[in-house]
Amino acid sequence: MKKLRTAVVGIAGYTGAELVRILSLHPGLSLERAFGASTRGQRLARALPSVAGVAGLEGMVIENLAETSPEALSKELDVVFTALPHAESARVGASLYRAGLQVVDLSADYRFSELSTYEEWYGAHPEPELLSKARYGLVEWHRAELADARLIAAPGCYPTAAILALGPLLQAKLIEPSALVVDAKSGVSGAGRKPTASTHLPETSEGIRPYKVAGTHRHTPEMEQELSRIAGVSLKVLFTPQLAPFSRGILANCYARALPGVSVEQCRDAARATYAGTLVGVLDDDTLPDTLWVRGSARALVSYALDARTGWVIAFSVIDNLTRGASGQAVQALNVSRGFPEALGLPLVAQFP
Amino acid sequence: MKKLRTAVVGIAGYTGAELVRILSLHPGLSLERAFGASTRGQRLARALPSVAGVAGLEGMVIENLAETSPEALSKELDVVFTALPHAESARVGASLYRAGLQVVDLSADYRFSELSTYEEWYGAHPEPELLSKARYGLVEWHRAELADARLIAAPGCYPTAAILALGPLLQAKLIEPSALVVDAKSGVSGAGRKPTASTHLPETSEGIRPYKVAGTHRHTPEMEQELSRIAGVSLKVLFTPQLAPFSRGILANCYARALPGVSVEQCRDAARATYAGTLVGVLDDDTLPDTLWVRGSARALVSYALDARTGWVIAFSVIDNLTRGASGQAVQALNVSRGFPEALGLPLVAQFP
Amino acid sequence: MKKLRTAVVGIAGYTGAELVRILSLHPGLSLERAFGASTRGQRLARALPSVAGVAGLEGMVIENLAETSPEALSKELDVVFTALPHAESARVGASLYRAGLQVVDLSADYRFSELSTYEEWYGAHPEPELLSKARYGLVEWHRAELADARLIAAPGCYPTAAILALGPLLQAKLIEPSALVVDAKSGVSGAGRKPTASTHLPETSEGIRPYKVAGTHRHTPEMEQELSRIAGVSLKVLFTPQLAPFSRGILANCYARALPGVSVEQCRDAARATYAGTLVGVLDDDTLPDTLWVRGSARALVSYALDARTGWVIAFSVIDNLTRGASGQAVQALNVSRGFPEALGLPLVAQFP
Amino acid sequence: MKKLRTAVVGIAGYTGAELVRILSLHPGLSLERAFGASTRGQRLARALPSVAGVAGLEGMVIENLAETSPEALSKELDVVFTALPHAESARVGASLYRAGLQVVDLSADYRFSELSTYEEWYGAHPEPELLSKARYGLVEWHRAELADARLIAAPGCYPTAAILALGPLLQAKLIEPSALVVDAKSGVSGAGRKPTASTHLPETSEGIRPYKVAGTHRHTPEMEQELSRIAGVSLKVLFTPQLAPFSRGILANCYARALPGVSVEQCRDAARATYAGTLVGVLDDDTLPDTLWVRGSARALVSYALDARTGWVIAFSVIDNLTRGASGQAVQALNVSRGFPEALGLPLVAQFP
Repeated sequence: MKKLRTAVVGIAGYTGAELVRILSLHPGLSLERAFGASTRGQRLARALPSVAGVAGLEGMVIENLAETSPEALSKELDVVFTALPHAESARVGASLYRAGLQVVDLSADYRFSELSTYEEWYGAHPEPELLSKARYGLVEWHRAELADARLIAAPGCYPTAAILALGPLLQAKLIEPSALVVDAKSGVSGAGRKPTASTHLPETSEGIRPYKVAGTHRHTPEMEQELSRIAGVSLKVLFTPQLAPFSRGILANCYARALPGVSVEQCRDAARATYAGTLVGVLDDDTLPDTLWVRGSARALVSYALDARTGWVIAFSVIDNLTRGASGQAVQALNVSRGFPEALGLPLVAQFP
Repeated sequence: MKKLRTAVVGIAGYTGAELVRILSLHPGLSLERAFGASTRGQRLARALPSVAGVAGLEGMVIENLAETSPEALSKELDVVFTALPHAESARVGASLYRAGLQVVDLSADYRFSELSTYEEWYGAHPEPELLSKARYGLVEWHRAELADARLIAAPGCYPTAAILALGPLLQAKLIEPSALVVDAKSGVSGAGRKPTASTHLPETSEGIRPYKVAGTHRHTPEMEQELSRIAGVSLKVLFTPQLAPFSRGILANCYARALPGVSVEQCRDAARATYAGTLVGVLDDDTLPDTLWVRGSARALVSYALDARTGWVIAFSVIDNLTRGASGQAVQALNVSRGFPEALGLPLVAQFP
Repeated sequence: MKKLRTAVVGIAGYTGAELVRILSLHPGLSLERAFGASTRGQRLARALPSVAGVAGLEGMVIENLAETSPEALSKELDVVFTALPHAESARVGASLYRAGLQVVDLSADYRFSELSTYEEWYGAHPEPELLSKARYGLVEWHRAELADARLIAAPGCYPTAAILALGPLLQAKLIEPSALVVDAKSGVSGAGRKPTASTHLPETSEGIRPYKVAGTHRHTPEMEQELSRIAGVSLKVLFTPQLAPFSRGILANCYARALPGVSVEQCRDAARATYAGTLVGVLDDDTLPDTLWVRGSARALVSYALDARTGWVIAFSVIDNLTRGASGQAVQALNVSRGFPEALGLPLVAQFP
Repeated sequence: MKKLRTAVVGIAGYTGAELVRILSLHPGLSLERAFGASTRGQRLARALPSVAGVAGLEGMVIENLAETSPEALSKELDVVFTALPHAESARVGASLYRAGLQVVDLSADYRFSELSTYEEWYGAHPEPELLSKARYGLVEWHRAELADARLIAAPGCYPTAAILALGPLLQAKLIEPSALVVDAKSGVSGAGRKPTASTHLPETSEGIRPYKVAGTHRHTPEMEQELSRIAGVSLKVLFTPQLAPFSRGILANCYARALPGVSVEQCRDAARATYAGTLVGVLDDDTLPDTLWVRGSARALVSYALDARTGWVIAFSVIDNLTRGASGQAVQALNVSRGFPEALGLPLVAQFP
């Protein structure tokens, strides 16, 4: 198999680190160049100790993207992953895309179909005309559009968890498309690699806390865009993110009002129909998911419960925020865009325990 | 101060261990006798290594309650804490109570005013006629009734968190007394001291998972009893417990529909009015609570947010499940029953970090 | 590549789970059959939730090895991994080996060249005559002997860490072959999958403790056998294992007296010479290793320091106890025995963070 | 009991936080003033959420020490705890001491009897003439000198663990006073409250790593000063600190060569003789300590093992680095200096689990 030549821009963040891991396992992709800002000039093993001692990777030197040109890169590469802060990611991705490279962007910049939504939540968009070129990389819900996509927006971690759980219920019209509550808990890697007071181990490791609640977290509009599209109506989500004391994983508990007469088995059947043959597993009966079951995996697991006493459905999902919620999903979408088997090169069996 | 003489039955469990810690700090209570079943005959330090090297405690021998009589104990003791499995706790507590001892029960056995509720969720009650004698030991909501109480039911951990958060809103009629969702995360000490597959560190420490969801957890009716009483109407709660990878602490996110025109400041004011001068702190403005802030403390913290986009109120609370959620609260109720200052001898400043 | 057909006996333990993960990534090995005792009859996803939703694996049914015959298996399989309690592993492995299957044993049963050593530490050996057929699967030190090996003993986790760190120093005669102290900390997965008081999260997750110290841990003679062989003299090791509150990883701090005039650079050079082109990375200068850098990887990292004030050398090593310390190393040795590239199919880049 | 009036300078660090907790439990000490630099002007509950909701503490305003004078403070206070970076702590403490206040310093500034040792490891000392006035606050080894001490140097955390373990063996001449190796693991609170890459949860919580090894950690000379004093000879220590993934606790494994004929029982007897009636517990027989057993406690536990195969003694100790290793020990020394019972107001029973 002739490998597609890839580069990662923003290699020293956690999504970059996870891309390096996945690319090392992938038979159809090779990592040719590594770019970073604060880490430029460093050997890769210094920025990412996860490759210390790995021949062919540890000595790779991190470059400054500003010192090369998109045109030059387009002669040596096929695909570039951009994992940068928003706005900057859009700018960099646009120049690479225009030079003919396929771009997979891990920021929020190309996730929104409406410019106004982006502007409301993130500010000015440096490349608004490209929004219509981008494809949202949630394979299970956008597979057809991703064929031949040249600009892919990898979905956010929390939206991935919420959409995978609620999507089948909204599509099958089993729940009210209002009163949606997403109570989600993320491992701390979701906060990025920069140390802050809120990621300092002594004040983070033995407790749990909510943050950016009541409609203030930027993943809210992304959930709403996709769930509204699936439901066919404009809906709102109350989203409560929480920081839990481990590195990787998201558990989303999604609450919705069941429509009259709906059974939990209908919920499961809808999910099974949606996700047959995909990387999303639907748990049986009374099995409730654990984030540990998907650590390091590009899979997601969903599970459903219905409380007859109150009429609520609970749609649960677990993902690894860095694999399924970011880098693994980015490669999954790239696989589809290139006609590869969807799971090619992806770690599926979780690292357990 | 002449100390009240106490004993703990079920000393080797986590609530027993926490009672021993609190009693060691309390100027008005002394631990005179320790009882255990599987640990009988052991030195206390062997069963509870937290007292190894503590003069006066480490050498105390754990006794078998069956080898003494309630009458004999009533001559040597003033108060007995019972921390046993349900039904057994009721039986033991009843015999001690009838012998004239004050009993503080940490099981669920004396928490329900309706026998039928207990029977539905726990099975047959061995001492139904005592239900009417018992007082529910949530001081902030039952202070008056606790004066001179001789049989105190220490509340459950999850109900404590949920009631403290939602109580003021229901009392002040700020939320709909339906559509209540309690999404709560507990440290693993809440599962008790017996090792099981679900508490085995490698499968518990780096992830999070729900359990007993959709109206199947026994703390549901306890929340409903108290919140219905406060609201003045019979209401239902959808309760989703989750196991989080640390030892102590509960975070409860309680979702309710705001009544029209209600502001978050009204929510905070209601809580401040309810909890002035108590062990419940109401966080200001945009401060969200962290379980770490109450570790080892008998305090609770509550906080409120309102999402204008969707009309949901979120009432947050954090407690230490063993201190505020069990043993500390038991002593708080005992303090009130004896006319002591409510906080006497209780650890209030959290162990931080 | 025509895949070798493999089976795992003892699939539901942690080394079994890790084998399943590695086999799923390996281009030259397929998992054909899964055997377990207490889990027989279960779908694999029930015993190992890490494969829930993985096509081709989740539905595999765990079989009872007693219900088939080695001869029948030998027609369908090429290799069997045995991951069973000691003695039982020897018995099962022997019957499979005699039926013509290649056996990779993850227990201690075939690690010792001297029967008396095994008997002293483990008890009677059910298949003593096979000891001379077995090859110790530490590839970096036994590569040549492993070619064409049909009975491979995968090394123990702690010995792997200690031997990789100290081996080069003993071989190059840089340290005294006495006064060796190995102070090692392991994640809790090393204790296996059975829940016990010492793996119960509330009493394990926020602390650290030694166990089986002062020459009582069974990995002691394994370290001594290999280090004596390398040193060319019979030596003893003081080994102090400790349980640290995470799932995977071992950090071994190995203390030895430097021989006169030895420099730390000589130590590093010796290690670099030994490990060039292998899966063991030698850290530069002042870089100290972290178990996090090898999580989920078949690599090991070693690092050296010398304290001129006291004359001690410290040889550090980190491994993932399940990957490098067990299942990954088992496959590494199998690769060598079959003439595959040593690292074929092995995860090398760590899951970071 | 008329309370001594105290203040804490550097209240928002972890030793400050722990002092606040201990002072809240102490019947003979009151916290009157709180000083901080970066937190000046804040309410105490904002800097230390552990007091949120605690009447009398949460509203205390943190002051800037520079805006008052030692003389003014000396009229309102009896004791000041200084918990500042080294050199700054010496300066501040000296001015308070000269104004007549009793000073308990939690930095390293007043721990050394030889100025040259301080200068070699820490740099210039701003108040060298006060070194001779200071008393080293390790009560078990300096009780007599601490009576009436007006300038107390609270010992470092690692030295406390090492000295308590090895002291009795050196005093009783049971081990060689050379070849001492201290392999110690600390919770992350020991690194202070400032977030750094090495305390960032995703890169710290699921692994363990050494740092500042081979004679480079500043606690080395402190151990050597005290152990040399006890042994009566100048000795050296090889000290290997490690960061373990929890908040609080130190486990020190101290290796020494047993002198000929020495038994483990002699080691225990020596420790029992030294520590009778103190806050140090000596574990029996085969009991090995766990840091969890002293969390939040001012106690220490020590334990001994002897490996007859190699002749090594291992002296184990566990402490809570913030309680016994810092603030609790500071109060213990203050208690002794004032003629209070040594344990007055100190939490002894551990927070377990």
